[in-house]
Amino acid sequence: MKIDIQLIPNLPEPKMIFDKTAVVIDVLRATSVIVHAFLHGIKEVIPVKTVEEALNKFEEFSKEEALLGGERDSQRINGFHLGNSPREYTPERIKDKRLIFTTTNGTRAFSSVSPAKRVIIGSFLNINAVVEKCLEEGLDVFIFPAGDEGNFSLEDNVCGGMLIDLLIRKRRDEIRLTDSALAALFIYQRFEDNLIGALHLSRHGKELINIGAVEDILYCSQIDITNIVPFYSNGRIKL
Amino acid sequence: MKIDIQLIPNLPEPKMIFDKTAVVIDVLRATSVIVHAFLHGIKEVIPVKTVEEALNKFEEFSKEEALLGGERDSQRINGFHLGNSPREYTPERIKDKRLIFTTTNGTRAFSSVSPAKRVIIGSFLNINAVVEKCLEEGLDVFIFPAGDEGNFSLEDNVCGGMLIDLLIRKRRDEIRLTDSALAALFIYQRFEDNLIGALHLSRHGKELINIGAVEDILYCSQIDITNIVPFYSNGRIKL
Repeated sequence: MKIDIQLIPNLPEPKMIFDKTAVVIDVLRATSVIVHAFLHGIKEVIPVKTVEEALNKFEEFSKEEALLGGERDSQRINGFHLGNSPREYTPERIKDKRLIFTTTNGTRAFSSVSPAKRVIIGSFLNINAVVEKCLEEGLDVFIFPAGDEGNFSLEDNVCGGMLIDLLIRKRRDEIRLTDSALAALFIYQRFEDNLIGALHLSRHGKELINIGAVEDILYCSQIDITNIVPFYSNGRIKL
Repeated sequence: MKIDIQLIPNLPEPKMIFDKTAVVIDVLRATSVIVHAFLHGIKEVIPVKTVEEALNKFEEFSKEEALLGGERDSQRINGFHLGNSPREYTPERIKDKRLIFTTTNGTRAFSSVSPAKRVIIGSFLNINAVVEKCLEEGLDVFIFPAGDEGNFSLEDNVCGGMLIDLLIRKRRDEIRLTDSALAALFIYQRFEDNLIGALHLSRHGKELINIGAVEDILYCSQIDITNIVPFYSNGRIKL
């Protein structure tokens, strides 16, 4: 099993990933919110790239059934029901609903890796379940940190490095790592005993602290609060 | 002083770098060879992207004055005087000559960062002199590891991380790091006491071992054998 990680969210060539399991990670906060939302009863998440697409997609559903969620500049979008904080996604608001979701980095990551054989949603919240799913699939693994407006994001790569570390612990003899995967592993090991430190140190973490969303950092740095692993297929995320 | 590092050798936007000092690093082996060549008396290095360009450029000079050097697949190019091993670049062969040089990763890196205000050549061999030059220039620093055929290369980023570590030690209060720069710093710190370990672990290092060039790895992992800092300007590298 070969493991690679796209340290910077460059669009991968389809041939690099078509026979692999792709794991999309956006710790702060899109994939954490998605995992949290499924844990609290959402039926489906439809990730879209732009606000316009979200509004158009919303028209396809009844008003009772659909919700608009997401952010720009870390803030809820005007006219949307929900922002990008897991705290907003309560069972009362989201159970059995469809979420149409657009964020700066996370939601575009899904289409970037859509040629992969499987696309699954990773975060600290479900990290060991993601490990099990990767092993169950048995394919090479391509980790795709959503990044920070096209740049490297520390927190997503720490999470990717943790995934690599856990895979090695389970299957040491079968794992081959690219130079990128080695690098992510070392970056993770630096924060192994202090994950929250990585989130506080990252540019995006600092931005969230500035807008008063420090609770989201705490929430998103929790390990294994669930064993669900949502997957993306044909433009939709389901369980 | 802001420090950024391009973990993967994506072409940077000119506006990202035009007012910065760019440091090109290709530990195995282009920038190590360039530093070594100047240390042993070469007059000028002309980096070009293709073998064809190298042959055309060679025609512009007298046969006594110019040398063709470089590699493809880590091997000397047919018809060229020199490959990409520092061992070949002896004073007897190169003193007062011009080198027309093409390698897989390193030589194209120079044109990628050519919009920068200054472009300097970094390696372990001259790392503290590069630190001094960056401080002397006083500009923001953009480190450009040449990478491995477009991918992340461990050894170049370890060297970039060492440069960041040394800059911080000199000017802690003035330095601001991007998430990428933090990551390179942590990767370097993992190998701080065992630089050669990083070179052996890297994909490119393994390839060099396979072709019997392990001595080049030892040579290129030496720290501060010189204080020269060649610079690139208008398509040429000089002292």
